[in-house]
Amino acid sequence: MAARAGIVVTGTEVLTGRVTDRNGPWLAERLRLLGVDVGQVVVVGDRREDLAAALRHLAGGHDLVITTGGLGPTADDLTAEVVAEVQGAVLRLDPDLEARIAARVASLTAARGWATAPEAMARGVRKQAMVPEGAHVLEPVGTAPGLVVPSAQGPAVLVLPGPPGELRPMWEDAVRDTLVLAALAGREELRQRTVRIWGPPEAELAEVLRTHEAERGLEGLEVTTCLREGELEVVTRFAPAAQGAYDRLEAALVAAFADAVYSTDGRTVDEVVFDLFAGTGATLATAESCTAGLLAGRVADLPGSSAHLVGGFVTYANEAKTALVGVPPRLLEEHGAVSPEVAEAMARGARERLGTTWGVGVTGVAGPGGGTPEKPVGLVHVCASSADRTEHRVLRLGGSREAVRRRTVVECLHLLRVLLDEGR
Amino acid sequence: MAARAGIVVTGTEVLTGRVTDRNGPWLAERLRLLGVDVGQVVVVGDRREDLAAALRHLAGGHDLVITTGGLGPTADDLTAEVVAEVQGAVLRLDPDLEARIAARVASLTAARGWATAPEAMARGVRKQAMVPEGAHVLEPVGTAPGLVVPSAQGPAVLVLPGPPGELRPMWEDAVRDTLVLAALAGREELRQRTVRIWGPPEAELAEVLRTHEAERGLEGLEVTTCLREGELEVVTRFAPAAQGAYDRLEAALVAAFADAVYSTDGRTVDEVVFDLFAGTGATLATAESCTAGLLAGRVADLPGSSAHLVGGFVTYANEAKTALVGVPPRLLEEHGAVSPEVAEAMARGARERLGTTWGVGVTGVAGPGGGTPEKPVGLVHVCASSADRTEHRVLRLGGSREAVRRRTVVECLHLLRVLLDEGR
Repeated sequence: MAARAGIVVTGTEVLTGRVTDRNGPWLAERLRLLGVDVGQVVVVGDRREDLAAALRHLAGGHDLVITTGGLGPTADDLTAEVVAEVQGAVLRLDPDLEARIAARVASLTAARGWATAPEAMARGVRKQAMVPEGAHVLEPVGTAPGLVVPSAQGPAVLVLPGPPGELRPMWEDAVRDTLVLAALAGREELRQRTVRIWGPPEAELAEVLRTHEAERGLEGLEVTTCLREGELEVVTRFAPAAQGAYDRLEAALVAAFADAVYSTDGRTVDEVVFDLFAGTGATLATAESCTAGLLAGRVADLPGSSAHLVGGFVTYANEAKTALVGVPPRLLEEHGAVSPEVAEAMARGARERLGTTWGVGVTGVAGPGGGTPEKPVGLVHVCASSADRTEHRVLRLGGSREAVRRRTVVECLHLLRVLLDEGR
Repeated sequence: MAARAGIVVTGTEVLTGRVTDRNGPWLAERLRLLGVDVGQVVVVGDRREDLAAALRHLAGGHDLVITTGGLGPTADDLTAEVVAEVQGAVLRLDPDLEARIAARVASLTAARGWATAPEAMARGVRKQAMVPEGAHVLEPVGTAPGLVVPSAQGPAVLVLPGPPGELRPMWEDAVRDTLVLAALAGREELRQRTVRIWGPPEAELAEVLRTHEAERGLEGLEVTTCLREGELEVVTRFAPAAQGAYDRLEAALVAAFADAVYSTDGRTVDEVVFDLFAGTGATLATAESCTAGLLAGRVADLPGSSAHLVGGFVTYANEAKTALVGVPPRLLEEHGAVSPEVAEAMARGARERLGTTWGVGVTGVAGPGGGTPEKPVGLVHVCASSADRTEHRVLRLGGSREAVRRRTVVECLHLLRVLLDEGR
């Protein structure tokens, strides 16, 4: 059995969805790379009793418990105090740490030109310098130190700050800490491979998996599948001994789904498209109506995308479609803004105005208003065009405005992927 | 004490961060509106023993446990089975339900043109029609039914599907179910108010809260604060009896922070900007380099934004800055693309080309590459310009490429907010 860690994410803002937790998933992936399995992530609000209950729950069945958040200077930041109590340790002021935090706060205050009263700052610093007896301190990246708090009865608790920009750099120190290393002594390599498929229904994937299991077995493989925005993901975790079984599974998926399998090496569709552009000299321009920049913005998520992304147009209003990418007003009158003709004119216009190899045009009804019986909410026309190839997609999407817009971006990326792949 | 619900989110894809959970937060907010408090959200992978442990953990201290996900046709979808086991109920095939699901699957298959083998489909349908004895069935929205599974010992478990597009419509049925209503009988109104502040440091907010507590008290108020992308959020929950105490707190915050308080009614900065545009006839055009469309895309997140968002430009490459919004090549040579001069030329160019009231230009070094000692990663120049007002911001941001780009968008929205507010 591999070493197992449990994670407690604190913060009423996370529990109520005002903030999306980015630490739990990040830690889960880091732990996996270390060969540590994550069993459960518990999200609790800034309440003493819920945090204590979560810590006690995870103490069973886990070798290390990690908390994130609740280390700030405000009174609702309770983590150090509650962890100390659950681990049976007394909190004491660490004067050296207090001085180091005070220096950090002073330099931040100076840099940002804040005029906070010194007593207010000092009180916050003192709160953040309280350390449970017997705990190891991890140097602060922002103003909050991390802590590793051992216990006579249960697993050690690793206390990390909430802001990802503080937690991530501190992780490097955390995994070198002797108490953390001792807790994770039982870790063993756990491999993870992902097969990504675009197109077939989930039930078809289920059947292929069932058949493979019956014929060849899935011994030693933990297979999970997930359907998200039309993309099917098959993620398999296994110990090195099961590599052969995994190779057979992957071969079976590739045999069953052929070209629909677009990635077996962990790359997302964004990365596949990036790599298809790389080194070819091909370039891209976009013209977006309902997605209003989200496609270009997503292409630019990957550093280095300036090698192919030249620019784009947000042609939200009809007059912008005409003014920016030269969609003839006649086309808009005859076919309406949401039509294959206009999507194509947008794609061509973007390509021609920026002199790129490819242009992509997107126009649709994202909703919730603006739908008609002929052109309902969720109808989107996409076109990708180069000098010698023009390809259309008509999408009929369900769900919210946000879902329609996000899914449209994914569809555009897959259309580009298919066309770039053909052209290789 | 109000009724309390606990939530179990299932799915290895959520636990490992490949998919962001959108159900836990959505349910937490729905429950709050019903007067039900959410104590904990537990995320578990698709593993029998972890799901069972989470259910048993939440059975203590909660009046209702809600699960999301794990109801699909694939073998890793275990929820109905594990819930039945924990609640002490036997699973039985419901033949009527099987027929109804089969009809839904047949119509979906026909609509999408899938050619899946009938036996594969039938097996998936049968799996989804297995119902724990004594449970209530909630009609499927997709293909998976919801379940309400009572227990002799502990709280009932409400089992909901994972896709938000299925879960959300089913919620209406769930809250009318007699077993769910009985579990939540103790609910009482819980109010929530949010004050949003832009500018001051968190420690200053902490001090104002401490002073107010010492002088006037926070009796009956559950106050949580959160700093996110420069925005400070103060969220307070309280029973109706504490409304007076809340009003005093809100007045104290407004008195302490004055114009830095930009919302006391729950509106986000996006909504405040939207409302400032509304009815004025003012319009907006964007020219984005490092954000590459994310600002325009975010303005268009709100339905009805076409009333002010005319369009925009993604001027990622330097030649696009010149070709699309007329940034003089001389300016690029003299000052570099990341400079206040170029940001201003972009803002003006966008405004002039689209004939809008306002133009916003954004140019910066998002990283991780491309930084120099003079212009490091995180340096961003933003400019908003109208016919009679031009305002600059220089940002020096920390964190990842993603963090720099997202924070830049927030800064642009606040710059627009301040300028539109002045102009009223």
